[in-house]
Amino acid sequence: MRVLGIDCGSERTGWGVIESDGRRHSVCAHGLISLSARTPFEQRLATISAEVKRVLAEHLPEAAAVEEVFYSQNVKTALKLAHVRGVVLAAIAEARIPLGEHSPLSVKSNVVGYGRAEKSQVQLMVRTLTGETIESEDSADALAVAICHAVMAATALRRIAR
Amino acid sequence: MRVLGIDCGSERTGWGVIESDGRRHSVCAHGLISLSARTPFEQRLATISAEVKRVLAEHLPEAAAVEEVFYSQNVKTALKLAHVRGVVLAAIAEARIPLGEHSPLSVKSNVVGYGRAEKSQVQLMVRTLTGETIESEDSADALAVAICHAVMAATALRRIAR
Repeated sequence: MRVLGIDCGSERTGWGVIESDGRRHSVCAHGLISLSARTPFEQRLATISAEVKRVLAEHLPEAAAVEEVFYSQNVKTALKLAHVRGVVLAAIAEARIPLGEHSPLSVKSNVVGYGRAEKSQVQLMVRTLTGETIESEDSADALAVAICHAVMAATALRRIAR
Repeated sequence: MRVLGIDCGSERTGWGVIESDGRRHSVCAHGLISLSARTPFEQRLATISAEVKRVLAEHLPEAAAVEEVFYSQNVKTALKLAHVRGVVLAAIAEARIPLGEHSPLSVKSNVVGYGRAEKSQVQLMVRTLTGETIESEDSADALAVAICHAVMAATALRRIAR
């Protein structure tokens, strides 16, 4: 299955598309929507919306996955992130593909095998699993979410098939 | 000036367009985007995005105004609201009109003359100011935000003209 993963952020939103059978994963494309903090927030949101729609139209994923929103650190940061998530989720729904929301713990467990893994470990494991070196941490995080979704989807399908 | 006000909510998003010189305000149109809590959240976001874009294209406001996000009650509720705000702000930026963000205190002060006014007082004052009875509280709130914006814009212009 072809899965789009998105790592939302108000300044840097990473994305990655993989082709996966739940065990082997290959990277089809990945990128980073990088926006200046000096650009008005609503304009950044409009750009993120347009870019995500472009990625959806160009790579035609069968499913999309994002991390669940969490607010462990800072409410203000979480609220900004939720605005970005809003436009991303709306774009996914508009493309009429299923949406998966996974906790950071689940992403790390499924990709690294350890729920409290560091960002650098996620990046390294994405390289090991896909054979590609991803420069941007945000794009690697996006690919990790996509891999997590593919693994979970394949596991769910195997359970049904039993 | 023609101002669109929007009162964001994950189940009920009110909107209203006024024509105003900062003192006299008339209602051009108003409505309510009402969505079932049973509809998946991302689909609700896509519908709100499409509806706000339709209102912008149909009524061609010169400015749009929303309330600032506040999180006095419940972080979970505030995060949901922030997702809705995200798609609304992106639609406004896409329409290339200026965005005004006003605190609930400022809206109530400018419309009712009292920052801690009740919702019913806002609704009553919107009726008094525009001569129109607005059934939906959410649409009345949206018109109140638009009126607040028009009053503040006119005051700012008078200051510059001095």
